[in-house]
Amino acid sequence: MIQRLTIIGVGLIGGSLAQALRSAAYVREIIGYGRDVANLEKAVSLGVIDSYAPSIAEAVRDADMVVVAVPLGAMQSCFSEMVGHLAEDVVITDVGSAKASVVAAASAAFGELPSGFVPGHPIAGTEKSGVEASFPSLYRGRRVIVTPLPSSSAEAVAKLVSMWNETGAQTEEMSVERHDEVLAATSHLPHLLAFGLVDSLCSMDESEDIFRFAAGGFRDFTRIASSDPVMWRDICLSNREALLKVLQQYGNDLSQLMSLVSEGDGAALEKTFASAKAARDRYANQLDGWKGSFPAE
Amino acid sequence: MIQRLTIIGVGLIGGSLAQALRSAAYVREIIGYGRDVANLEKAVSLGVIDSYAPSIAEAVRDADMVVVAVPLGAMQSCFSEMVGHLAEDVVITDVGSAKASVVAAASAAFGELPSGFVPGHPIAGTEKSGVEASFPSLYRGRRVIVTPLPSSSAEAVAKLVSMWNETGAQTEEMSVERHDEVLAATSHLPHLLAFGLVDSLCSMDESEDIFRFAAGGFRDFTRIASSDPVMWRDICLSNREALLKVLQQYGNDLSQLMSLVSEGDGAALEKTFASAKAARDRYANQLDGWKGSFPAE
Repeated sequence: MIQRLTIIGVGLIGGSLAQALRSAAYVREIIGYGRDVANLEKAVSLGVIDSYAPSIAEAVRDADMVVVAVPLGAMQSCFSEMVGHLAEDVVITDVGSAKASVVAAASAAFGELPSGFVPGHPIAGTEKSGVEASFPSLYRGRRVIVTPLPSSSAEAVAKLVSMWNETGAQTEEMSVERHDEVLAATSHLPHLLAFGLVDSLCSMDESEDIFRFAAGGFRDFTRIASSDPVMWRDICLSNREALLKVLQQYGNDLSQLMSLVSEGDGAALEKTFASAKAARDRYANQLDGWKGSFPAE
Repeated sequence: MIQRLTIIGVGLIGGSLAQALRSAAYVREIIGYGRDVANLEKAVSLGVIDSYAPSIAEAVRDADMVVVAVPLGAMQSCFSEMVGHLAEDVVITDVGSAKASVVAAASAAFGELPSGFVPGHPIAGTEKSGVEASFPSLYRGRRVIVTPLPSSSAEAVAKLVSMWNETGAQTEEMSVERHDEVLAATSHLPHLLAFGLVDSLCSMDESEDIFRFAAGGFRDFTRIASSDPVMWRDICLSNREALLKVLQQYGNDLSQLMSLVSEGDGAALEKTFASAKAARDRYANQLDGWKGSFPAE
């Protein structure tokens, strides 16, 4: 059980974690910190956090678990502000969508990495943001990738895994590099494509009709383009190399598909579509089966 | 009211139209035709059609409304088979996602286009297909684009509009060319991108992990990649020119976005994402407001 949990950045992800741990009775006290006092007041009034501190230095004092849930671009300054104020056995983690950049930010802030520092990434979220959007079951039936570093103590890793399991999530360990490659493909690339598509359509001559006649499929396809622009700016920059690699590969594959359309090669188009449909149906079925194995709310 | 409705191709789209008109009591008798007798038997047993005919020639006999709801590649042969068997005042329409190719198919089959021929396109559907997936409210609160031709009689257009209005849809008239451009952007391009993304991910080294760790956003984004491959092959080929045009433009915009990532231009990325988010949120709100103005089921 966590005695004193500090959440830095009380938004959708941090707020939902606080609510999940509270409803699992796995935490005694929750301290919040953030730049926006009005948001912190709201988090208190919603019962998401017990109180908030005026600085990171005060927020982390005596905490046995510190979760940094801020955009990737703000990680380094958060880590810097906690230096010299952390309890000895504290576990420090984050929820960032790109891990190499978080490790770099921590190294820059801490110098030698603390043994309690274990990066993590819950594969969960919605296109909404802010503490009002947070809810206790966000992590139920989801996966959390934990990326222990050579400097991480086994005890800290175990504590982090226990915390996430209490939210109803399943944890898996992975290297920082592999995490960043996998997430570039499954999350960062699709977000960039969706933002790019909507932006591209906006600039077309028929843009008014385009949005008027867009159907349900389009709505699903572009839902992730409603995500927070600052967060996604930071993710794109933080995972730049892995993202460019998959973007390059996707660009090549798309050019090839374009050639098939241009040449009118129906057989090859059908084959590509059929294999994509099969893979996508397999994935959806797995996801259904896997989530079904968790107790309902 | 329609006395005798012939549905050629009793799948999701044709079956849902039959069910919608039946539940509106706007049709006396529904005859089906399709290549797969087992499917037609199922459509009868589900009450979607009253009976089915062994040929298109017999199916269209004495019909006052003929709806061709087959893949685009099968349109021409369907039209050819009805030549000489149509009643004088019959309205003939289709539901194809690309209209210029349907007009070309009809011209090839009929020679001079019948005055009762009015192409149409309901902007509705799901990623599922087949008569089992059909349901009467599919068109409720949706738009149907009607593309009258110079050869279409005003009476036929009015009858077609009345039929679609009975399903709870709202009709709008548009030229064939504009329809094809708008649909290329809002529907055909996103489908190609989604099929392409899933196919591209399948070929990556980490493909197993990629699908294991794909989250909810990915699921939404790729839902349309579960659509029928043959139908989408036909759409891509039938609307080739308009699709290549938007694909080219999207490709250029994506390259530019890739350059921003590569150069680490955070300000420009954030601006692009923010404007895409604003457009997408505006679109979703309009869709909500617009659908909300229809009576609930």
